[in-house]
Amino acid sequence: MTRQNISKSLAVLLRARMQPNPIPSPPPPPPTDPDPAAPPVALVRHWLHASASAASPAPAALDSFSDGYRSLDLVGRREVLRSLAIDYDVPRARVRDLLRQYMSVASAEPSGGDDVEAEGKEGAASALYRMERGLRDALRPRYAGFLEAMNAQPGGLKLLAVLRADLLALLGEENAPALRALDLYLKEKLVTWLSPAALTLHQITWDDPASLLEKIVAYEAVHPIRNLIDLKRRLGIGRRCFGYFHPAIPGEPLIFIEVALLKDMAASIQEVLWDDPPTPESEASCALFYSISSTQPGLSGINLGKFLLKRVIDMLRRDMPSVQIFATLSPIPGFMQWLLAKLASQIKLSEAESQEGNSLGACSTFKESILLPDEERMIHDATEQADGKQGIELLQDILKSRQWVKSDKLSAALKRPLMRLCARYLAREKKRGKALDAVANFHLQNGAMIERINWMADQSEKGIHQSGGIMVNYLYRLENIEEYALSYSSTGFIHSSPSLSEYLEVSNIGLCFTPIYFD
Amino acid sequence: MTRQNISKSLAVLLRARMQPNPIPSPPPPPPTDPDPAAPPVALVRHWLHASASAASPAPAALDSFSDGYRSLDLVGRREVLRSLAIDYDVPRARVRDLLRQYMSVASAEPSGGDDVEAEGKEGAASALYRMERGLRDALRPRYAGFLEAMNAQPGGLKLLAVLRADLLALLGEENAPALRALDLYLKEKLVTWLSPAALTLHQITWDDPASLLEKIVAYEAVHPIRNLIDLKRRLGIGRRCFGYFHPAIPGEPLIFIEVALLKDMAASIQEVLWDDPPTPESEASCALFYSISSTQPGLSGINLGKFLLKRVIDMLRRDMPSVQIFATLSPIPGFMQWLLAKLASQIKLSEAESQEGNSLGACSTFKESILLPDEERMIHDATEQADGKQGIELLQDILKSRQWVKSDKLSAALKRPLMRLCARYLAREKKRGKALDAVANFHLQNGAMIERINWMADQSEKGIHQSGGIMVNYLYRLENIEEYALSYSSTGFIHSSPSLSEYLEVSNIGLCFTPIYFD
Repeated sequence: MTRQNISKSLAVLLRARMQPNPIPSPPPPPPTDPDPAAPPVALVRHWLHASASAASPAPAALDSFSDGYRSLDLVGRREVLRSLAIDYDVPRARVRDLLRQYMSVASAEPSGGDDVEAEGKEGAASALYRMERGLRDALRPRYAGFLEAMNAQPGGLKLLAVLRADLLALLGEENAPALRALDLYLKEKLVTWLSPAALTLHQITWDDPASLLEKIVAYEAVHPIRNLIDLKRRLGIGRRCFGYFHPAIPGEPLIFIEVALLKDMAASIQEVLWDDPPTPESEASCALFYSISSTQPGLSGINLGKFLLKRVIDMLRRDMPSVQIFATLSPIPGFMQWLLAKLASQIKLSEAESQEGNSLGACSTFKESILLPDEERMIHDATEQADGKQGIELLQDILKSRQWVKSDKLSAALKRPLMRLCARYLAREKKRGKALDAVANFHLQNGAMIERINWMADQSEKGIHQSGGIMVNYLYRLENIEEYALSYSSTGFIHSSPSLSEYLEVSNIGLCFTPIYFD
Repeated sequence: MTRQNISKSLAVLLRARMQPNPIPSPPPPPPTDPDPAAPPVALVRHWLHASASAASPAPAALDSFSDGYRSLDLVGRREVLRSLAIDYDVPRARVRDLLRQYMSVASAEPSGGDDVEAEGKEGAASALYRMERGLRDALRPRYAGFLEAMNAQPGGLKLLAVLRADLLALLGEENAPALRALDLYLKEKLVTWLSPAALTLHQITWDDPASLLEKIVAYEAVHPIRNLIDLKRRLGIGRRCFGYFHPAIPGEPLIFIEVALLKDMAASIQEVLWDDPPTPESEASCALFYSISSTQPGLSGINLGKFLLKRVIDMLRRDMPSVQIFATLSPIPGFMQWLLAKLASQIKLSEAESQEGNSLGACSTFKESILLPDEERMIHDATEQADGKQGIELLQDILKSRQWVKSDKLSAALKRPLMRLCARYLAREKKRGKALDAVANFHLQNGAMIERINWMADQSEKGIHQSGGIMVNYLYRLENIEEYALSYSSTGFIHSSPSLSEYLEVSNIGLCFTPIYFD
């Protein structure tokens, strides 16, 4: 092969489009038809029984369970999960016995201060502690020992992650109390086992094994990696990629984060992914977190990202004192879905009103002006066939067609309302006191503030679909991280910048304060 | 420097005698005089309060506590430990409230099978699970959250190990129930955090950093490493050294094991440490574990060695199929101490008897013939000045002087009784149903059997002092490991080889079966 041929082949290789997901997402979807050679579910339950009923389960039984469970189809797996949750539940009869004993001892607790009684008191105190320990033990479900032993087994943590992913899927369809209790217990244990103390931070570079890099490509959930050039770029000058690894799952990160070192906080993902040439690292003053992906669906709800971010910020501060700004450029995954739902409900409400005449007055309890009068007019003007529709109907049509991005006129008309509504969605819309948007909630609970929203920041199909192309910068102000995290977790208060407040104040004017009349 | 000079310097360096313990044993002994600039104990308790009373303790408070605690003297540390155990104990009032609620719900548990009631039943079941979770939470001492948060903090695991080492020392003097409960709780958590899933097995070689090798030298607890040649030998051809590492304590193993690959199971430590040239690895058929050392006194009672041994055996089996024998050459740390105590009590008993005349008959309940008649005669014959003493008195004198090793005559006379008594000590003497000797108990609970005891196997001063120079081979028979571990843990049964049984049968003959007479 000539030198020229080699570089040509290399160029082809580097540019070759990658499969969006060359590795099957873990856990591998269980085959719907069971392998005829696979052990039947009865055999897996046998191994479960052998493992879960022993004081210290034999490693061989645990391995047989693991192999058997993985080979089961969806129906079989669910049968095993139900058995685990119900047959190895809390031993209630024992709990009740111990409770009665405890109540009698605890109520007889001596309260005097006599020296003569000191020894008897110490004996009573010892008995109390012993009973509390016994009670704590008895209140553990019987599957606790099985889960602990499985975690200690090589490959066991991965199996438990698979098991929990199956359990979460099952809970989506069948929200039984025993299954929910199993999920909560397993999650609690996973939080302990995956404590940041047990995780290793590793900077992933182009020097890492292909088997690891392949996983980064497969698991990148935010901005898909298009080809090897794209991957190399994300690991090269002005870029960092850090992963959190656990000894029991070697060779693949549980979660990883991608960072760009830039002069300023970027306002679009295009300038992050394709800035050419990259900013010299010595000139960088902003570390921009532009992607964070977790790899194990079974670890859902376990906040590994919080500690990862913290450690990465600490490391960058130490290594690059010139970097002063720590911010993200984040997607807003729930914005469009929320807005379209809002539009649909308001349109329905309007229709109901016009059918009933105006008997409820100009504005019912649930009605709100989504669009400001100015915004409504601009949308009308930009639309070619308004067909006498209201502004919100036109907006719904436009957003659903997704063609508006290609029209300068429509884009210009949508910019103001979408930016304003996006600010409101991020900073005001809540669910159980927390930000409705999952990514917003993640960064806010970690102590960030909402700094800026950016128009046409992600023009990919996914970006337009999720958030009308808008992206948001969350800012981690080092001096406020702990304070913001605390106020958000205790009161749900969301810190945001003045630039965001401007949108929010306009929003307030737009709310419908018309009094409500009942006939 | 000439080439000759360099090699001479190198030779000097390599032969230089190492300090037995160049690194202070962890945890560093707290200074007895507090640093005048150190925060007083009140300040540390302040940080403890700030950390232990918050729902999610601030990292800064945890760090301040760590720094403050380390700077305290022994008295201060103990005050903090007492405060932790008592002031952040189980919230008993809350437990009692929850217990009462639970009892009323649990006793009202519906038992019918009616479909109409299904929804109500599901609600009741949910409530029951919720209360059980609440109760489990309430039964956790209030310091539980503090310990969890500390473990998640960089350097926190190490601090907790220091804290537990201090606690164990305190418990030795002041066995208060609250302190014991704290120790049990912390130990339970450490077992979870140090699950084998969180540990990495690493083969330590001469290519490892000096900072790591230095720790191997410092922590080697069984056969001190004399110089760099000795160290290099233990990491070279025919040798393996494996350590278990935790991500939170980088650069030093929690425990490590040294292995020699030999033709046969060695009968003395000399041939292991100084076989020259080493057996070619291709000819090895025995993997001999000759040293296992743990490095953190605060992790006492957490059986890391069991999993380490298991993983090392698995790895060696895979890499070296010609190795079929997995055995140890182990010290018998408690033998001499036990024997001298036995001799002292029997001598006292004899004296008491001779003072009272023979009123209790030839043999009281507690009297036993330690020496067989033959053995007694041989010891008499070998002693120059018997002074009319009994065999056991002579044996006591001889063992105490420790000069017998240098005399062939005395050594020959002692061999039979010491080997026989050693076999009895290992295989018969128990404490709470487990082998009295700590090393024996360790290997037996891991599933080993007692294969052979070896005369003059460790002629070092320490070896003579601990066990009269006798060492023992424990054998791990792969096909029996789980079975043996199970029978030992459930019934205390100790498996031993026929060669050991021979000693034990002779011992039985020697026991005193004379009936007891009371006046």
